[in-house]
Amino acid sequence: MPADSDLILPVAEERSDDLFKTLPERSKHEDFIRRAVDLLVERVVFGRSSRAAKVVEWTTPDDIKRAIDLKPKDGAVSHDQLLGIMADVARYSVNTAHPYFVNQLFSTVDPYGLIGQWLTDALNPSVYTFEVAPVFTLMEEEVLRAMRTLVGWRDGEGDGIFCPGGSVANGYAISCARYYFYPEIKSKGVYAVPKLVLFTSELAHYSTPKMAAFMGIGSDNCVLVKADSFGRMDVEDLETKINETLDEGATPFMVTATSGTTVFGAFDPLASISMLCKKYNLWLHVDAAWGGGALMSRKHKYLLNGIERADSVTWNPHKLLAAPQQCSTFLIRHVNILKDCHSSNAKYLFQKDKFYDTTYDTGDKHIQCGRRADVLKFWFMWKAKGTEGFEKHIDTLFDNANYFLEHIKQRDGFKLVLEQPECTNVMFWFVPPCLRGHENEPDFRERLHKVAPKIKERMIKEGSMMVTYQPQGDLVNFFRIVFQNSALDPKDMVYFANEFERLGKDIAV
Amino acid sequence: MPADSDLILPVAEERSDDLFKTLPERSKHEDFIRRAVDLLVERVVFGRSSRAAKVVEWTTPDDIKRAIDLKPKDGAVSHDQLLGIMADVARYSVNTAHPYFVNQLFSTVDPYGLIGQWLTDALNPSVYTFEVAPVFTLMEEEVLRAMRTLVGWRDGEGDGIFCPGGSVANGYAISCARYYFYPEIKSKGVYAVPKLVLFTSELAHYSTPKMAAFMGIGSDNCVLVKADSFGRMDVEDLETKINETLDEGATPFMVTATSGTTVFGAFDPLASISMLCKKYNLWLHVDAAWGGGALMSRKHKYLLNGIERADSVTWNPHKLLAAPQQCSTFLIRHVNILKDCHSSNAKYLFQKDKFYDTTYDTGDKHIQCGRRADVLKFWFMWKAKGTEGFEKHIDTLFDNANYFLEHIKQRDGFKLVLEQPECTNVMFWFVPPCLRGHENEPDFRERLHKVAPKIKERMIKEGSMMVTYQPQGDLVNFFRIVFQNSALDPKDMVYFANEFERLGKDIAV
Repeated sequence: MPADSDLILPVAEERSDDLFKTLPERSKHEDFIRRAVDLLVERVVFGRSSRAAKVVEWTTPDDIKRAIDLKPKDGAVSHDQLLGIMADVARYSVNTAHPYFVNQLFSTVDPYGLIGQWLTDALNPSVYTFEVAPVFTLMEEEVLRAMRTLVGWRDGEGDGIFCPGGSVANGYAISCARYYFYPEIKSKGVYAVPKLVLFTSELAHYSTPKMAAFMGIGSDNCVLVKADSFGRMDVEDLETKINETLDEGATPFMVTATSGTTVFGAFDPLASISMLCKKYNLWLHVDAAWGGGALMSRKHKYLLNGIERADSVTWNPHKLLAAPQQCSTFLIRHVNILKDCHSSNAKYLFQKDKFYDTTYDTGDKHIQCGRRADVLKFWFMWKAKGTEGFEKHIDTLFDNANYFLEHIKQRDGFKLVLEQPECTNVMFWFVPPCLRGHENEPDFRERLHKVAPKIKERMIKEGSMMVTYQPQGDLVNFFRIVFQNSALDPKDMVYFANEFERLGKDIAV
Repeated sequence: MPADSDLILPVAEERSDDLFKTLPERSKHEDFIRRAVDLLVERVVFGRSSRAAKVVEWTTPDDIKRAIDLKPKDGAVSHDQLLGIMADVARYSVNTAHPYFVNQLFSTVDPYGLIGQWLTDALNPSVYTFEVAPVFTLMEEEVLRAMRTLVGWRDGEGDGIFCPGGSVANGYAISCARYYFYPEIKSKGVYAVPKLVLFTSELAHYSTPKMAAFMGIGSDNCVLVKADSFGRMDVEDLETKINETLDEGATPFMVTATSGTTVFGAFDPLASISMLCKKYNLWLHVDAAWGGGALMSRKHKYLLNGIERADSVTWNPHKLLAAPQQCSTFLIRHVNILKDCHSSNAKYLFQKDKFYDTTYDTGDKHIQCGRRADVLKFWFMWKAKGTEGFEKHIDTLFDNANYFLEHIKQRDGFKLVLEQPECTNVMFWFVPPCLRGHENEPDFRERLHKVAPKIKERMIKEGSMMVTYQPQGDLVNFFRIVFQNSALDPKDMVYFANEFERLGKDIAV
């Protein structure tokens, strides 16, 4: 190897005509990286996660386009300009690290998760063979095994993969389930098998019917089962719908239950559902994308009782466990199905005459070929906190949710959608003064429906917090605050309630 | 908002029982982040991209497990231990930033790409609504439009998305094509439409039959068309196979052509294929995951002539343009299909009564829900280099490939698989001295087949470079060196050839 120890980074700037000359770009790139990292650490990481920062600096699409020249150009810009651009991108981006960004099922920038992610980026792996990604390959297997143990499968038996999101993980469940019953589907397609029907709750995430459409089954063949008043799948209705499907001559093959629904945070009754699955010979998939993290807590894991009877599980550590975007897993109790169902044995990548044990080349289990390593950030957080640290994190989230729930019960204007939600989602209407006392009037619901969008507009324009709202079935627009950041404390719970009152007190609808 | 400006980062360590007390974690986390960033910049980024570093420090799976405690534990480890772990993870990971990692269709850590990626991580967005990801949403639209303009669609017309890899992008192509002809497939499934058949080259990437299986069509219904001696799709055979399919009563609906095949780097004849597609009313998808970057070069873009007639295109900037993993796009000439085909209009996320123009909420075009922002790193590189910088990068890659090709033509022991490859892949056999002069013996091919794995083992164990090998059809194992890092120069080309000679000279087969 040449003894030359110059830093070699790819460059697109002017090259010397003397092709054997050393590239002159080293110090220029080093200088830029140091300045950019300084900006990242001081202004983006440390500057944005404080309560004193704004959650969002609301700017219209046109104004953002005026503030940042988004169109790619023929020419290059200078390093100074690039640093300015970085600051602008951060300034106009929503501050998802902010303690008051409680708008989605993800938030926060965990310091260990961030460093794990940055290390991953610096190593820039693609995880398909041991040859190219030795550490990441082994790390994935260990983390997935530990997660399967938490699910309750003996000795972590089974298999698993990291996926680009919970939706795709739910798609893998459909893929594995239908392959389990009809392996000929891989080569012959849906044409070769009976008409397949799957079942999920009407309050389940939209990804199950969406993936059923993408995968050739059709969204109509994903039958929606009624939910009870807590938002949980109605097991009686499930059995009725299974029998209706059988009567129509179609073939039920799987149930996707949910542990932590997106809006209500409800946990479907897994034990009862699994008994029906056994009775009718159906695959049981549990979408625990949101609620899976509760398995880390001895106090709260009862919510997922029965998950150990599932054939497969979706669990996103980037949700309740606050790993950075994106960290999603698909876990399966059966050992060889992922590989048998998805492998294509491409000889250019999965050569069998390599000098090492090629069972470590795990990429062919995936529908992706090149694939980001989403494991390290989560593994690094697990190292840094231990399971005990995650447990405290989870317990804090539930404590905060409960504190907020009890607090707003005492205050005027807050009306709970669910008196006793199961997860850390708290759903409520804020009834502004102009509507109080008018609850029995015929246009109350219609007027109340307009409140949340108006408060949300004020909230975003002020940047004081971000909380989402939505309607659900017959329920008019209500707020859903999601606790997923364990740096929050009861003082913050009071802040949220105060803010709703401040933003909503003079709303006219 | 409280005036308190303490840094708030989520913590899992001991919390105070006084729930209103300020968290004591600030300085501890700040200190860790600073030390970790220092390690990342000095040891990982600057320490690994030098020619003097090893490409890989080969370690067996068992030895890696001994060196790094990969199993998640109940307890936490200290910050000092975490820093040691980071160094170990880097040490045992393959150095994909190394100039001599030429093993895959990706490599290098571009300094602008890395900073763009790190900024993305620090902002931790999920791209589905303008509300949550305003800058990223607009940035995606601008970059995708600019890419469509380079494809040759007038004024960048059409639509597009960022995808988790080219395989999934090729799946989107199947999804959009079948929806275009049979929109009822979304709700009714494959059952409701004729038996669909698609066509791709026998040398195309394995993702097309793999995605056909995943999507319910079945891998057998992805018909493989013969390739000519340059590795390009044989258009006559395509027409024969289309007619055979019609004779069997099945329904051809799309052709996936390739611009830059994975192994040979061949470019299918798009103009002729598009004429057949017109004649038989088939969707034309072009998988330009690898070769798409050549569209940036006035000198080399002729390779993709005819791509402007495609209905859709896969193009991965993380390949030839050297963006960090992972940056893949799916581009489509038709405006509404992505949305109509994949939308599910979930009311909890895509509320229509928001106060801004909700056509900016682009997430429902995807099968993913939560989604990483893969645009910023590429956009930032484009800003930093300009299209002109990318053009120089591409031209350098082709110059290097040509230099290497001409160089090994002059040297003993190298035998080219393709005399004139079209892309920057160069394929060759290294014939060790023990086999020279034995070319006409009956066991020559069998013996030659064993050479590449043996050289590869030495190469990896020494860590002096990484070049992949594979068989292909009747061809026994050959090496494929891939030029995708424009920091390389002719001196490096000579180095590669010397290394093959050094590693292979005393191979006995």
